[in-house]
Amino acid sequence: MAYTFSTALAGMTGTATRDIFRLLSRPEIISFAGGLPAGDCLPIAQIREITAEIFADPKEAARVLQYGQTEGYPGLRELLIPLIKEAGIGGLIDNENILILSGGGQGLDLMIKAFVNAGDVVLVENPTFLGFLETLKAYNGVSIGVKADRDGINLEDLEAKIKKYKPKLLYAIPNFSNPTGKTWPAERRKTVAALAAKYNFMVVEDDPYGRLRFSGDAVPSIKSFEKDLNGKDLHGPEEHVVYISSFSKTVSPGLRTGFAVGNAAVIRKLAIGKQGADLHTSNLSQAIIKRYLEKQYFYPNIEKSLPVYRERKTAMIGAIQKYMPGEFVHTNPDGGLFIWGEFSVPVNTVEIFKEAIEQNAAYINGTVFYADDGEGGKAGVLGANTLRLNYSNESPERIEKGVKALGEVFKKHITALGKK
Amino acid sequence: MAYTFSTALAGMTGTATRDIFRLLSRPEIISFAGGLPAGDCLPIAQIREITAEIFADPKEAARVLQYGQTEGYPGLRELLIPLIKEAGIGGLIDNENILILSGGGQGLDLMIKAFVNAGDVVLVENPTFLGFLETLKAYNGVSIGVKADRDGINLEDLEAKIKKYKPKLLYAIPNFSNPTGKTWPAERRKTVAALAAKYNFMVVEDDPYGRLRFSGDAVPSIKSFEKDLNGKDLHGPEEHVVYISSFSKTVSPGLRTGFAVGNAAVIRKLAIGKQGADLHTSNLSQAIIKRYLEKQYFYPNIEKSLPVYRERKTAMIGAIQKYMPGEFVHTNPDGGLFIWGEFSVPVNTVEIFKEAIEQNAAYINGTVFYADDGEGGKAGVLGANTLRLNYSNESPERIEKGVKALGEVFKKHITALGKK
Repeated sequence: MAYTFSTALAGMTGTATRDIFRLLSRPEIISFAGGLPAGDCLPIAQIREITAEIFADPKEAARVLQYGQTEGYPGLRELLIPLIKEAGIGGLIDNENILILSGGGQGLDLMIKAFVNAGDVVLVENPTFLGFLETLKAYNGVSIGVKADRDGINLEDLEAKIKKYKPKLLYAIPNFSNPTGKTWPAERRKTVAALAAKYNFMVVEDDPYGRLRFSGDAVPSIKSFEKDLNGKDLHGPEEHVVYISSFSKTVSPGLRTGFAVGNAAVIRKLAIGKQGADLHTSNLSQAIIKRYLEKQYFYPNIEKSLPVYRERKTAMIGAIQKYMPGEFVHTNPDGGLFIWGEFSVPVNTVEIFKEAIEQNAAYINGTVFYADDGEGGKAGVLGANTLRLNYSNESPERIEKGVKALGEVFKKHITALGKK
Repeated sequence: MAYTFSTALAGMTGTATRDIFRLLSRPEIISFAGGLPAGDCLPIAQIREITAEIFADPKEAARVLQYGQTEGYPGLRELLIPLIKEAGIGGLIDNENILILSGGGQGLDLMIKAFVNAGDVVLVENPTFLGFLETLKAYNGVSIGVKADRDGINLEDLEAKIKKYKPKLLYAIPNFSNPTGKTWPAERRKTVAALAAKYNFMVVEDDPYGRLRFSGDAVPSIKSFEKDLNGKDLHGPEEHVVYISSFSKTVSPGLRTGFAVGNAAVIRKLAIGKQGADLHTSNLSQAIIKRYLEKQYFYPNIEKSLPVYRERKTAMIGAIQKYMPGEFVHTNPDGGLFIWGEFSVPVNTVEIFKEAIEQNAAYINGTVFYADDGEGGKAGVLGANTLRLNYSNESPERIEKGVKALGEVFKKHITALGKK
């Protein structure tokens, strides 16, 4: 027989990604295609010390190895409250407003599961995180892309598309977006919070990168702008924003630990969804994060890692200016993992990818990050002249070498265009 | 505003379960309501040793803390092959046939995601695992219960319901079922494999408890009976059974690690579903399980734990015979965690639960494990005279004390019935 998969997953083959990752496993390739945090910054010694402490305490070891609660490991959520307040989310946050996740991505899945019926529209900034678009497809949801400028989502297009599509959700990465590295200014966030209240849709505020800021000042979260008419923080059913973050970029992605913050009724619904998904997040991962926070390793380690990220980003920007053609217009982020580039001439980054690989350098073509724009622009076609570059997991020397190789490939194509 | 949740999750409040677990957190309660493996058997010292080894190896520590592959941690799937073959699954099993899961329950979620469209029917043995019924609801699937006798699923009713409902899936726990503790004989498994091929539906064979056998002989898995006409193992698109197991009952539930085995095309689809769900299972959990298998801790520890489970089951059976009314008919499992009981007179286990709690003893009422039977019998109503007892996480002394308390409560009710 041929398997009859669900309509949600039938069209998803994952072949393209698989093939790319097979190519990238060749060690000679300098890859800007991934999204790994800097391997050099992983706190190996500290987590080694922490696991030793956990297993030296028979009571805690037994608790870690036994089943746990869906909502979170005892004591962990309390420790997150100061971190959450620091994102500008004020008022009465307590355990009922927090759900521990198996990585921030699980929060996106659960928000879709909780709010999206088949055929429902979700608005996204175009381009946006590929993983969100894929997960939405797996629930038969429909993504529509909103225009963006250099500061992120375009508010006029957003409101027009809210009116047109009556979306269930808006998905947003307002800090150092994946794939663009863009950051939304405070005013834009405030307006988005107000639009959510006015038009009654939920906002999934995805903030995996916010703490990886190596220049400029932090901007308060969208959720922090949920205020009542007197400017008081909202903590009732008027809350429209669920804030999601993770420890993948600040501690370790391999531990798969993140968290969602929102109205207690929403958090509870997400917990019901999580119960069926994986019952609870690994207790060992949670216990490690808990002690990591208790031992005050969190902030100093981020401080130590920021110069690494800054150096790599600076190296990449320098190499781009040195080697990439003048037709390459790119972002210059203040944090996060990614630089986004667009050619002002019609080079096709999908077609050129194989040539880049032959020169031992890899990027991700931008088309994969686009949703249909609702005006005839189609996913898979939009962004044919764009690409995403990741700088966080290669040394400055290899960054220079890789960008040089890419520059030569693209210059050759642009020269050929001129001759046509 | 009132939140407008998806139709899938809107009806799921989880209130009943929450209230029960709040009651059960009182330390004086002897609880037979849970499903925890024996806390005394958790291999704390060995996992302590293993984590120390992992973090003593800088290369492995770095790999553990960085992002990993969705399919599984390097080297882990290879080590599972002998375990899988031991479940009677022969032929060419390789990495492409295996997906590492964040607990066996994730496999149920992914199989539903991959095969079930809204409104599709899934057949289950009635009663069955509550978690599966809940997860199916979250995808708007429809569960229909098949009759069972003392040896598990009734084949006549199964075939009749296959013809009537044309199910996408059959969900089966053929070893020491949750909630009943029943085990399907080999012949029944063989027939189920044949029916899946004949009528073209998938079988989700859930086997979390199979290795916890403390008496009698192991029975080959349903999947092991997938043979071609010459009796050769099937390893092509003719495969209809996906076998799912976990390390939650044999090593540690807190690590959330399990695995699925099936046709490579199906496994790949499950991996695509998993990518959106949690990207990959905690690398640390996977690395621990890998070393645990390499160091040959797996089988000896199970051997050591079996007498504990046997003793507790024996204590519970003894206490039931001593204290429960003669109207209580119950299973006597050869392994696993649960005993199932049914009253031959109309006592209502839902109503009596609060009285039991007042006497400091808890069980789970059986109604929650039933799906609609497709013949007018409704979920939530069926099984009003049934209950599930868990014996694995209490001492023989407390088991005796708790069953005595339950016996007194039920005897009082049965006496009252006689007086009506």
